Amino acid sequence: MNEWIYETHDTMKYGFKAKEILYHKQSLIQDILVIDTEKYGKILFLDNCVMLSEKWEFLYHEMITHPVLFTHPQPENVLIIGGGDGGTLRETVRHAHVKHVDMVEIDGDVIDVCKKFFPQVSSELNSPKANVVVGDGIEYVKDKKGIYDVVIIDSSDPVGPAEGLFNQEFYNNAWQAMKDDGMLVTQSESPFYVKEFFTEAVVQIKDRFPITATLLFPMPDYPFGLWTITIGSKKYHPVKDYNKEAFKKAGFNTRYYNEVIHGFSFNMPRFFMEENR
Amino acid sequence: MNEWIYETHDTMKYGFKAKEILYHKQSLIQDILVIDTEKYGKILFLDNCVMLSEKWEFLYHEMITHPVLFTHPQPENVLIIGGGDGGTLRETVRHAHVKHVDMVEIDGDVIDVCKKFFPQVSSELNSPKANVVVGDGIEYVKDKKGIYDVVIIDSSDPVGPAEGLFNQEFYNNAWQAMKDDGMLVTQSESPFYVKEFFTEAVVQIKDRFPITATLLFPMPDYPFGLWTITIGSKKYHPVKDYNKEAFKKAGFNTRYYNEVIHGFSFNMPRFFMEENR
Repeated sequence: MNEWIYETHDTMKYGFKAKEILYHKQSLIQDILVIDTEKYGKILFLDNCVMLSEKWEFLYHEMITHPVLFTHPQPENVLIIGGGDGGTLRETVRHAHVKHVDMVEIDGDVIDVCKKFFPQVSSELNSPKANVVVGDGIEYVKDKKGIYDVVIIDSSDPVGPAEGLFNQEFYNNAWQAMKDDGMLVTQSESPFYVKEFFTEAVVQIKDRFPITATLLFPMPDYPFGLWTITIGSKKYHPVKDYNKEAFKKAGFNTRYYNEVIHGFSFNMPRFFMEENR
Repeated sequence: MNEWIYETHDTMKYGFKAKEILYHKQSLIQDILVIDTEKYGKILFLDNCVMLSEKWEFLYHEMITHPVLFTHPQPENVLIIGGGDGGTLRETVRHAHVKHVDMVEIDGDVIDVCKKFFPQVSSELNSPKANVVVGDGIEYVKDKKGIYDVVIIDSSDPVGPAEGLFNQEFYNNAWQAMKDDGMLVTQSESPFYVKEFFTEAVVQIKDRFPITATLLFPMPDYPFGLWTITIGSKKYHPVKDYNKEAFKKAGFNTRYYNEVIHGFSFNMPRFFMEENR
């Protein structure tokens, strides 16, 4: 077969030619689709939006983890909300400081599908450092107090199941779940295709955290190929308090992230600032 | 009306929703299409490939001109091959050093269409610094000897009319048309969707020029949102011989390019190097 599978937005759409539909099912939470392609490997769609391709997932997963985990001087206890594919967990447990990771994914079917079809992404879901919970991250953080060094929100778009991860009530609870020098990081959408999503995510984090910073990185799987990640921090600034030596000493074998890209990715071009005032 | 207009490749395609088809005609050279969109302004397609949108054209036009024109210490005489929309000329004539620009565009209809529909892109086509010629750039350079400081190749993909701009015969002629410290710059496609185009362009320039460098920049109009530009140089290195002060002194009002982005854009991420060995 050769079928075009699209991600469709109001004013733009893009599609990949599927060699094969490997999996397609409505879970309790959302529509889950896995296709195989000639050039990009397997691709996971949730509710008709691309979550990752085998070819490019490293870009997103490196950039949602390493900038914050190399800024915090000792990130021992980490919470991941979402991230059912396991890619964020895989990068997180590579950090020697990290002793324990709670991962709370709302859709158990995503975990199962990724274990089956994306073994290189989901490879650390059984890590001894990881406690994988199927549940609602919004509820999960409500009774946690002062236990996490880093909270990573690895969610889909702020419509549907992830909507409650982008508001003040959630950020208040996440704040309380973190230690006094905790850092939170969230994917914050693209300022290039649904600007409202981006603006809202950043405004909410700025309202709650004394230190915030947004980074920009290439992500060919997503609309227009550019994506943002936003950090909210109680104490450490991801540029001013970043120690380049930590990355070098860790001897990490990354494909995109490094100490130069860390600094540069927070350096927003002028057009970006103009469009998002 | 609301019609999806696509750029289609073997394994991926992307489309914009057209509010209106403003122009559609087969010229002597190629298919020319102008659509209007709600979010990206007008978009120009040549032979069914996006050339520019009003929203994002500045990214490409700033990056194909300023890195080379701020590296060369005194770029007085410039040749642009292609660039019928006028965007490359617009950025080139902003440089105080530049005294004269020959622009050789093969398709006069592109010039006319852009004058009509893209006035902010084509704004300098009547500049007193500019000599606009409708003709074949491949033929044009054949009898030029040692006259240009900078040659800018602003072409479409290396199939169809632009094919002859990506081979050794052309680069030999361009070399001869340049002064002893001349610099050449060409759009060199994407390594992310038709890697062969990229590899071939870079290999050809490396064969001819002692100094070569490729830069990477975001370009949402093009497939996967990342694009490359490659410089071949006889004497000046675009990183080692770059003078940050030149940009600052020029007082340029750019939206993407600046002295930090200049340096960083030549800094290829590891995955890029691995994929293009």
